Amino acid sequence: MPAKKMDIEQWLNKFKRIEEKLKRLALLSQLSQILNSTLDPKEIRRRAMEAATQLMKAEAGSLLLVNEEKRHLYFEVALSEREEDIKTIFLNFGEGIAGWVAQHGKPLIVNSPEKDVRFFKGVDERTEFKTRNIICVPVRVKEKIIGVLEAINKKGKRRFNKEDLSLFTSLADQVAIALDNSRLYHELEEMFFQTAESLAEAIEKRDPHTGGHTKRVTLYSQAIAKYLHLDPSETKWVKITSVLHDIGKIGIEDDILKKPEELSPEEFDIIKRHSTIGAEIIEPVRQLKEVIPGVKYHHEQVDGNGYPDGLRGEDIPMLAKIVAVSDTYDAMTMDRPYRKAKDKKVAIEELKRCSGTQLDEEVVEAFIQAYQNGEI
Amino acid sequence: MPAKKMDIEQWLNKFKRIEEKLKRLALLSQLSQILNSTLDPKEIRRRAMEAATQLMKAEAGSLLLVNEEKRHLYFEVALSEREEDIKTIFLNFGEGIAGWVAQHGKPLIVNSPEKDVRFFKGVDERTEFKTRNIICVPVRVKEKIIGVLEAINKKGKRRFNKEDLSLFTSLADQVAIALDNSRLYHELEEMFFQTAESLAEAIEKRDPHTGGHTKRVTLYSQAIAKYLHLDPSETKWVKITSVLHDIGKIGIEDDILKKPEELSPEEFDIIKRHSTIGAEIIEPVRQLKEVIPGVKYHHEQVDGNGYPDGLRGEDIPMLAKIVAVSDTYDAMTMDRPYRKAKDKKVAIEELKRCSGTQLDEEVVEAFIQAYQNGEI
Repeated sequence: MPAKKMDIEQWLNKFKRIEEKLKRLALLSQLSQILNSTLDPKEIRRRAMEAATQLMKAEAGSLLLVNEEKRHLYFEVALSEREEDIKTIFLNFGEGIAGWVAQHGKPLIVNSPEKDVRFFKGVDERTEFKTRNIICVPVRVKEKIIGVLEAINKKGKRRFNKEDLSLFTSLADQVAIALDNSRLYHELEEMFFQTAESLAEAIEKRDPHTGGHTKRVTLYSQAIAKYLHLDPSETKWVKITSVLHDIGKIGIEDDILKKPEELSPEEFDIIKRHSTIGAEIIEPVRQLKEVIPGVKYHHEQVDGNGYPDGLRGEDIPMLAKIVAVSDTYDAMTMDRPYRKAKDKKVAIEELKRCSGTQLDEEVVEAFIQAYQNGEI
Repeated sequence: MPAKKMDIEQWLNKFKRIEEKLKRLALLSQLSQILNSTLDPKEIRRRAMEAATQLMKAEAGSLLLVNEEKRHLYFEVALSEREEDIKTIFLNFGEGIAGWVAQHGKPLIVNSPEKDVRFFKGVDERTEFKTRNIICVPVRVKEKIIGVLEAINKKGKRRFNKEDLSLFTSLADQVAIALDNSRLYHELEEMFFQTAESLAEAIEKRDPHTGGHTKRVTLYSQAIAKYLHLDPSETKWVKITSVLHDIGKIGIEDDILKKPEELSPEEFDIIKRHSTIGAEIIEPVRQLKEVIPGVKYHHEQVDGNGYPDGLRGEDIPMLAKIVAVSDTYDAMTMDRPYRKAKDKKVAIEELKRCSGTQLDEEVVEAFIQAYQNGEI
C-alpha cells in the first residue's frame, strides 16, 4: 500500500508544520505581551529587535524608524556584535531593502541579496556582517508608515518563506501599536512638563530679578539627579519639583516681590511664605503628592536654620535638598540689583563651604561632579 | 489492519484539534491587537467583553473590576440582552465564582454551577439568564488582581476545558496590559489637568474679584461642548482652553488688577492685554497649538467689537467663542465690587440679547440648552 504510506508521511509532515506554526503563534502572543507591557520607547525598540530575531529564528533583527523631516530611515538599535556601528547608519527613502519597503509600504523577502538591485551593500561593508537573506515588513500606525522591521539571516541556512512573512507582519503590527501608545504617552508627558514650565516661567517673570531662574534650577537639579544615580522615576520627580519650586511667589504682592532695594526683615518674612504657598497650590493634585515636600522645604538647611519649619539633616526630603543646592548656586551666579554675580569657581567654593551646614553634603558632591564634567 | 486504522483516526483527531488551536491562537493575536490599540478605558473594557465571548465561543462574556476601597467587584459592561440589569450588580470579595477567583487569584472552570456552592444565583435571577457553565480567570497587573474576566455558557452545549483555560489566561494578561497602559495614560492626563487648573487658580486668586472663575468657566464650557456635540478630542481642547484662558493676568500689575474701583479706559486697555499675554505664555508648548487661538481671542465679539484683533463671526475660532459665552455668563452672575450679581434668569436673557452681536448664536443656544437641562 504505497499510497497509504505516502498519505501517512504527508500527514506527518503537515502535522509537524502545523505544530511548529502553533509554537510560533504562541511565541508571537508572548512577544506581543512583552512589547506592550512598557511605555518606554527605548525599551519597546529593544524588545522589538529581540522579538524579530526570536520569532524569525534569524541571526539579527532590527527596527528602522522613519524620520519624516529628513526623509530617511535610521537604525535605532540592532542586535549584532557590532551594535555601535549599525547605530550610526542612515538610509534614504527608497535606498536599500528597508528603504524600498518604507517607500512602497509592501513587505519583502530577499533570499539572494547580492542579486537584488535594491540591496544596499553599505551596511554590510561597514559592519562586516554578511547578509545572506532578509525579511522586511513595514510598521504602520493608522495607514502611516512609521518604520520598518527586519530580520536578517534565517538560522540553519534556511530561507524566509510565506509563513514567516505572515507572522512577521503580525509582529510588526504589535510593534506599531506599542510604539504608538508610547508616543501618545510621551506627547502627553511633554505637554505636562512644558505647560508647567511655561506657567512657572510666567509666574517667575513677575520678579524682575530672576529671569530664567526656573529653567536653570531644573537643569542643575537634573544634573545632580544623574550624579546621585537616581532612577528615571525619581529623576522625573526632581524635574517636576524644580519646575514648580517657586510657584508660590504668585502669592507675594508686587510691592515686595518687585522691590529693587534689599528687603527689611519683615518684608523678607513675607517672601519666605512662598515655599509654603507653593506647596498649598499643588496640594489638590493627587499625582503631585511626591513633590509637595520638595516644594515646601526647598529653603530648609541641614543645620536647622532654614524655613518654614527649621527641619534638620535627614528630616529634609531629598527632593528639597537637591533644589536647595541648585537654587543657591543660581542665586550666587546671577546678578542681583544690590550685588554682582559671583564667578562660577567662587560659587563652587561657596557651595563647598556651606556643605554640611546649610546644604546636604552628598548633594553638593553630586553637583560638583556634574560641574567638573562640564554638565553645569 | 485495524491498528493502522485507529492510528489514522487518532492522527486525524489530533490534527483537527491542533488546527482548531491554531485558529484560536491566531484569533488571540488579533484580539490582543484590538485590545491594545486604544487607550480609552471604556473602549478597552468593551473590547475585553467581546474578546472573551469570541475566544471562548461563549454566549456571554464579562469583565468585573476590583474596587479596592469598597472591597467588591463590579460589572462594568456585559454583553447580554439585558445589559442594563447587569451593570448594576456588585459582588463582594469571595462572593460568587468571580468573587472567589478575585480573592484566591486562581482560575476556575465550573461546568455545573447549580452544584457549586460558590455560585451566586443573584445575577441569574436578576437577569433571567441561565448560567450552564462558566470560565473565570483573574486579571493581574504586576501580581495585583485588578479584576476578573469571565465567559458564560460555551456554545453548542459544550463544556469549558483546559485548553480554554490556557487561552483565556493569555487573553486576561493582554486585557491587564491594555488596562494598565490606559490607567497610566489617564493618571498623567489628570495630573496635567489638575496641575494646570491649580496654577491657573493661583494666578486667578491675585484678582480678588474672581474667586472660582476658572473652575466655573471650565464647567460651563464643557456643558456647551456637550450640547454642540463636539467629539472627545475637541471637548478636551475646550477644557484646556477654559482652564488657561485667563493665565495672561499674571502679566498685569497688582495696582490695576486689584483696583477695587471701576477702571479708567487707559487702565482697561492694560487689562485687555491679558488675552494676548496668555497666548504668549503657552506659545512655546507645541502640544497646546490648538488652544492658543482660543486663549488669545476669548474676548473677540462676532460683530467685530472685541479685542485684541477685532475679529468677526466665522474668523473667531470656535474655542474662543465657547469660552466667551461661559466667561460672559460668569461675569454677570458673580458679584463685582462696583455692581451686584445678576439673577441666573436675567443673565440668560442677557445672553440671548447679545446672541449674534457680541456672542455666537450657536454657542449661546447650546449654553441655554445645558441651562434648561439643569446642567448649568
